[in-house]
Amino acid sequence: MDDNLIFGRNAVMELLKSGRSVNKIFIAEGSRDGSVQKIFSLAKNAGVIVEFTNRDKLDKICGGRHQGVAALAAAKNYSTVEEILELANDKSESPFIILLDELEDPQNFGAILRTAEAVGVHGVIIPKRRSVQLNATVFKTSAGAAEYVKVAQVTNVAQTLKNLRGLGLKVVGSDMNAEIEFRQADLTGGIVLIIGNEGKGMRRLTRENCDRLIKIPMVGKINSLNASTAGAVLMYEIFSQRQIK
Amino acid sequence: MDDNLIFGRNAVMELLKSGRSVNKIFIAEGSRDGSVQKIFSLAKNAGVIVEFTNRDKLDKICGGRHQGVAALAAAKNYSTVEEILELANDKSESPFIILLDELEDPQNFGAILRTAEAVGVHGVIIPKRRSVQLNATVFKTSAGAAEYVKVAQVTNVAQTLKNLRGLGLKVVGSDMNAEIEFRQADLTGGIVLIIGNEGKGMRRLTRENCDRLIKIPMVGKINSLNASTAGAVLMYEIFSQRQIK
Repeated sequence: MDDNLIFGRNAVMELLKSGRSVNKIFIAEGSRDGSVQKIFSLAKNAGVIVEFTNRDKLDKICGGRHQGVAALAAAKNYSTVEEILELANDKSESPFIILLDELEDPQNFGAILRTAEAVGVHGVIIPKRRSVQLNATVFKTSAGAAEYVKVAQVTNVAQTLKNLRGLGLKVVGSDMNAEIEFRQADLTGGIVLIIGNEGKGMRRLTRENCDRLIKIPMVGKINSLNASTAGAVLMYEIFSQRQIK
Repeated sequence: MDDNLIFGRNAVMELLKSGRSVNKIFIAEGSRDGSVQKIFSLAKNAGVIVEFTNRDKLDKICGGRHQGVAALAAAKNYSTVEEILELANDKSESPFIILLDELEDPQNFGAILRTAEAVGVHGVIIPKRRSVQLNATVFKTSAGAAEYVKVAQVTNVAQTLKNLRGLGLKVVGSDMNAEIEFRQADLTGGIVLIIGNEGKGMRRLTRENCDRLIKIPMVGKINSLNASTAGAVLMYEIFSQRQIK
């Protein structure tokens, strides 16, 4: 059972009131009385995704006693993009930010956080929807790095990238059809590195907000890397270039 | 779980393309999108039996994460160290070999094979005992790369390293206390890169057979990388140095 699973009407209600970040609310189909409706509207107002599910599934998730509602809460509070930028500023460093564009796999997220922590990334940005969120598996795979790396959720990735570009940051994405190899690119200065979805890569709108596309060269038959591997290779290149500079 | 059970869309697709003998393909009823249809027609063209099955049965066979397709393949034969060296010779390249020193996690093994395939590694050596072996999870995580990369089992790692050094190969291991950073090391020429156990790193005897220890710099609080991540960063450095040369 997930460490961050919370269930029962009072517990879920208090969770929603507390301001702690919630990834998802489950409501059993057919639950319609007052307190469940109140939970539903609290969740909606907070922009939390609500999934209607059958009672059997909820029984399985919670091991019973859920009273028709359950919640998946984030294990720690999310940061904001502003806090990430402030951290860089406090350290007198150019911002080094990772943006995960609809990544799905919690093990990849955890592995990326672990590498990010090792190379001094100031924060990781994820979309609020259709993205893996901080959960117990992410924490476990990150070997604890999830405790130290700031993670911010944003509603609109394209707008966030526009804002960061407006602040002078360079937005860089990887693309196997890009002309320039990552080692040849200038990756110094304030940077946002995009890591795309495991299967689909970056979304079109995200790609359109890149200042630069870089390629990781490959000579095999398969020609794709795991998202966290590709991320690590690029993060270490950026890290090296920053150190030399 | 059967060792020759392969599941996941990429893994099954690469299996069918590789020419390796396949006994049967399972497709979950209701899976109809593009890649599943492609797998179906590849299987039909190759004369492989396709069985449509329900998702629950596939869940049971695979233990989840099958994406609607699985395959029963004939056992993949392990290669020998000699065959790995011959491959390098046939390609007129200096040998580029990875040795996994008692790696435990099949997902790490799969991820390492995937990167190894992308950078043109000639083969991966694993110990016969106390090491993860080629299995379904390895194939799946490798996204099919396990079909293309030669894997050799050896009984005595230290003796194998001595033999390879005798042939002029440089044996390189990573160590967080090493003095030289990986970017500063000369990693050209015939090389054996050691990737140690997830928790314990390299064994003493393995370390004693290294010509060079290199360090991956880190600036965080945790100061350790995932084995496949560290492997990827080092494999790409070697790959780059070989290309420039």
